[in-house]
Amino acid sequence: MASPPTRSRDELARARLAGPDEGISAEELSLAARNHAMPMEAMRWDLTPVGLHYVLVHYDIPALDPAAWRLRVAGLDGSAAALSLADLAALPRRTVAVTMECAGNGRALLEPRPVSQPWLSGAVGTAEWTGVPLADLLAAAGVRPDGLEVVFTGADHGVERGVEQDYARALPVAEALRPDVLVATEMNGAPLPVQHGFPARLVVPGWYGMAHVKWLTDVAVVDHEFDGFQHQAYRLRQEPDDEGVPVTRILPRALLVPPGFPDFMTRDRTVTAGPVALTGRAWSGTGEVTRVEVSTDDGGHWADAELGPSTGRYAWREFRTGWDAEPGDHVLLARATDETGQVQPTGPAWSRGGFANNGSEPVRVRVVASG
Amino acid sequence: MASPPTRSRDELARARLAGPDEGISAEELSLAARNHAMPMEAMRWDLTPVGLHYVLVHYDIPALDPAAWRLRVAGLDGSAAALSLADLAALPRRTVAVTMECAGNGRALLEPRPVSQPWLSGAVGTAEWTGVPLADLLAAAGVRPDGLEVVFTGADHGVERGVEQDYARALPVAEALRPDVLVATEMNGAPLPVQHGFPARLVVPGWYGMAHVKWLTDVAVVDHEFDGFQHQAYRLRQEPDDEGVPVTRILPRALLVPPGFPDFMTRDRTVTAGPVALTGRAWSGTGEVTRVEVSTDDGGHWADAELGPSTGRYAWREFRTGWDAEPGDHVLLARATDETGQVQPTGPAWSRGGFANNGSEPVRVRVVASG
Repeated sequence: MASPPTRSRDELARARLAGPDEGISAEELSLAARNHAMPMEAMRWDLTPVGLHYVLVHYDIPALDPAAWRLRVAGLDGSAAALSLADLAALPRRTVAVTMECAGNGRALLEPRPVSQPWLSGAVGTAEWTGVPLADLLAAAGVRPDGLEVVFTGADHGVERGVEQDYARALPVAEALRPDVLVATEMNGAPLPVQHGFPARLVVPGWYGMAHVKWLTDVAVVDHEFDGFQHQAYRLRQEPDDEGVPVTRILPRALLVPPGFPDFMTRDRTVTAGPVALTGRAWSGTGEVTRVEVSTDDGGHWADAELGPSTGRYAWREFRTGWDAEPGDHVLLARATDETGQVQPTGPAWSRGGFANNGSEPVRVRVVASG
Repeated sequence: MASPPTRSRDELARARLAGPDEGISAEELSLAARNHAMPMEAMRWDLTPVGLHYVLVHYDIPALDPAAWRLRVAGLDGSAAALSLADLAALPRRTVAVTMECAGNGRALLEPRPVSQPWLSGAVGTAEWTGVPLADLLAAAGVRPDGLEVVFTGADHGVERGVEQDYARALPVAEALRPDVLVATEMNGAPLPVQHGFPARLVVPGWYGMAHVKWLTDVAVVDHEFDGFQHQAYRLRQEPDDEGVPVTRILPRALLVPPGFPDFMTRDRTVTAGPVALTGRAWSGTGEVTRVEVSTDDGGHWADAELGPSTGRYAWREFRTGWDAEPGDHVLLARATDETGQVQPTGPAWSRGGFANNGSEPVRVRVVASG
């Protein structure tokens, strides 16, 4: 591999901004084609059907041999172990329903647009993940979590802004030891699909997707703050030289199941006039969703939707409301509030990398007279 | 629904062409985000793993209740039946391995670019489909195939160029009665994923994807040539006023498993100098693949690759060759020939709708010295 360029890590992590009226580039399209978004009508399901959950792969999907795979675990004191899938299967397992969302969801809706994976609003999905709590795994491996952070490395290997790397992210020890942080080997009761990290991945309920390291190969307790490439990249910055704030937990968001039927090209919707049930799902990584409001006039008025049963802390929650649809063009919006009082903004939340944009997604509907 | 516009069907079926240097539009991006391409590294698997097979949904994925679902079957003489999933399960079943490819695969590589679903080269996948041969199903339903064509209608409902429709396509009777044309209810041994047509879809081995009607609800024998919207749309035209030629069978194509590892944004590949195994897969709907050639100098020279075992008529076939990679920038190409003598072109095959572009896909590789 050629030597990495001499630019600073901070410089390397900055996204280019698209110019005014600059269309989506061939490079952005190639990312949109290979990384899968959830189509909006799939918001109708509590658990996202197989193959529709969003996927972002930084480099290539690795082809790992499950028989040869080992999870290397290392402590500060030199303790180390290498666990096989059979070793993991012998440990207590837990299943957690989790709504996972890419930190870049909504990036391509921003102006100016940061040039990277051009997500609209579909970089999300909900699954039941089954695996071994990381705390139990460390204990079984004889590795004491007595450091500052835990670094997780996956087998996804590539180059990003000139830096060759295995994808790696860290968590503070206290976060890593939460009982619902899993080394997961199953998704919705089946072995992980290859694109979701087969044979094992990290699941960190409540955090944006970049924390859930796929194709996990190494877990290391360290005594310092890990400053790998992906920690420089995933920061909220307004200006290129900002130190920025790390991207961590998922901000509140509500999305509607688009009513009626779509136009192939514009995706605008046609709805028949009369009573229409509007439903959707809402989630937040910072607290349980306690309120969802819906507007049928592009934010002019808001009405509280009825919330479905609580789904625990980390899976999206259904909401529903009625609408007496009158002929004409309408823009539908939804916004979520969580138990910490955080309210989803209706406008876009801009940052230089296009992270954590949880602005409401407008659903354009043409209501036509029945018959 | 508003009245359809007064433009002719032929006019409605024409794609707009993007202007010179016109970037991908927001509408094209929304299609790229919701319709999934197969990432190129998945070319390494004989059967495309769950969730990685390409999917094109014209309108919305329907939510069909499998208990209430019926397949309505109708003949010219007024004979009709409505079959449940249990009725289908009682009929003889067959499994066929099929490489399926969207007719629009490669559209976004064309210049000028027809504005529609902007596929690069990943609108493809291979699966084992299990279902009831259509011929047996018609016989069991007491419907005689004594017409000219068989029309297949799905539950996917929407608007396309002003025409509200359920997605519908027809086959000539002789084609529809081929013993490997299936009403499939399983993909790779499991019930169809919702996005692949649950609970039942048509599978027409060898034809481009538009023929394999998903969410099938109606099968009707007719005595005329069906001229529905999708038959106007899927035609090869050079000029807007051409009558055009119907898109039918998949043209030969070979694709490489990209060697080495990628850059996140450009997807360009880095390979270490020395012996490199180049592998890939090739397919054709017009005849079995009998030859694959590989070039490592952008088409300057071609060498025959070794073909893997025959996979039958309709599933892709592995090929492999060696390459002594020397440092520098290289463009790799592959091209397939089938038993009918059809050779894949190395340049793009342009048509007004962007269909059946089976030009070779360049794989850009930077070879670096080892160590």
